[in-house]
Amino acid sequence: MTNSFNDIPVSLHPAERIDDLLTHDLRIIQSDEVFSFSMDAVLLARFAGIPPRGRVLDLCTGNGVIPMLLTTRTKASIEGIEIQPRLADMARRSVALNGLTERVLIHEGDLRELHNTAGYGVYDAITVNPPYMPLNGSDLKLNSHQAMARHEIGCTLEEVIQACVRLVRTGGKVSMVHKPQRLVDIISLMRKHRLEPKLIRFVHPRAHLEANMVLIEAARDGKPEVRLQPPLIVYNEDNQYCPEIMDIYYGNKEDISQ
Amino acid sequence: MTNSFNDIPVSLHPAERIDDLLTHDLRIIQSDEVFSFSMDAVLLARFAGIPPRGRVLDLCTGNGVIPMLLTTRTKASIEGIEIQPRLADMARRSVALNGLTERVLIHEGDLRELHNTAGYGVYDAITVNPPYMPLNGSDLKLNSHQAMARHEIGCTLEEVIQACVRLVRTGGKVSMVHKPQRLVDIISLMRKHRLEPKLIRFVHPRAHLEANMVLIEAARDGKPEVRLQPPLIVYNEDNQYCPEIMDIYYGNKEDISQ
Repeated sequence: MTNSFNDIPVSLHPAERIDDLLTHDLRIIQSDEVFSFSMDAVLLARFAGIPPRGRVLDLCTGNGVIPMLLTTRTKASIEGIEIQPRLADMARRSVALNGLTERVLIHEGDLRELHNTAGYGVYDAITVNPPYMPLNGSDLKLNSHQAMARHEIGCTLEEVIQACVRLVRTGGKVSMVHKPQRLVDIISLMRKHRLEPKLIRFVHPRAHLEANMVLIEAARDGKPEVRLQPPLIVYNEDNQYCPEIMDIYYGNKEDISQ
Repeated sequence: MTNSFNDIPVSLHPAERIDDLLTHDLRIIQSDEVFSFSMDAVLLARFAGIPPRGRVLDLCTGNGVIPMLLTTRTKASIEGIEIQPRLADMARRSVALNGLTERVLIHEGDLRELHNTAGYGVYDAITVNPPYMPLNGSDLKLNSHQAMARHEIGCTLEEVIQACVRLVRTGGKVSMVHKPQRLVDIISLMRKHRLEPKLIRFVHPRAHLEANMVLIEAARDGKPEVRLQPPLIVYNEDNQYCPEIMDIYYGNKEDISQ
């Protein structure tokens, strides 16, 4: 099947669809069979500390949702890396679909090896929405694409953090979204590898419920002192998105990181 | 000066006063010159995981506010340790003032040495509201009592955590209140010394402001997985205490942990 968008021909594979990113007329190729982005990616793309220019990298980029959202926040050149060929291909077609091939480069490869070609300390900021779950056997129930995006099959949390430290410059920012259950692992591993957490924000589905997401921004070789931002509450008491979530999804007005 | 309360004669030193703890008719001796408890202690006394029986210890107990509040939540025997003789004496007089000498024992001494007399792993739960500030010179502006309560003069954060690990039994709980800025230090040091954070709650003065307090409960040799409780908001938009804070101060009904 071939789909034409802004005069750019883009081929869609079976079970793929084009979704609206709801911001700046961006579109994205998704597939429930292999990968669809979730709120985690959208919140990280707004939370992350991103310089106005320079080089930005998104690890575990999946279908490229974060690099595409970041184009609305910066003039930096943006790269993404994805280990699964089918997802990297989806991401490249989405980049083409939006006419962003001059601004976004998708690498297909292993984040543990990227420094061999890209070099050390070359990025000004890195974002990452890594697989959340440690390997424990339950991944066998999932198909291989979803398992790899959700479980630490291709790389562990420590390998992700080590890759960030190798690739980001001194003082550069690394922003991650993850599950709060792993907070102690994340913080301990970041400090161990000289990424100092500087800004943390918890996301709660409702004001009276436990957090189900954590956003962390760390600085390579940063000074030890972290700020805890106000809680980000998703739904209000009337089951409607809270104003800040509405703004993040539909607004484009301001950054959720101070 | 001598003050009689419930037929217990208690002497007050100059500049000391008796304040109401607002719960279970408890009273406490305070002095702005040397030590007055703050909301931190009250929140920790409600947040901390405390067994119904057994032995509970409060480190850096100051004027004994936490041991006295804990008597309303447990039948355990409760001890506190304070390095400053003047504060330990205030705490003992407050214990006597409330007729709690059978239930609360105040040690005057150095928490780094308590295992020599008390033994290793003898407490079922420990609470601690340690000095918040690292030594940096600004403590010279404070008088010695306040400086010692606020700055890491008598013991560092790592020494407090090491004392907790020596004194608590395997599986026992250690609950701490601290400043969020130190979160990375606290979490890294706890894990380093085999205290695994299991429950964290941030306190925000208002819903849209950064956290200014963090409550952490850790388990000695616990499994690595932490839960992030709903944010505790102190003031609502009308500058009134939020209902949960009202309940903690005036209610006595339920525990804020879980």
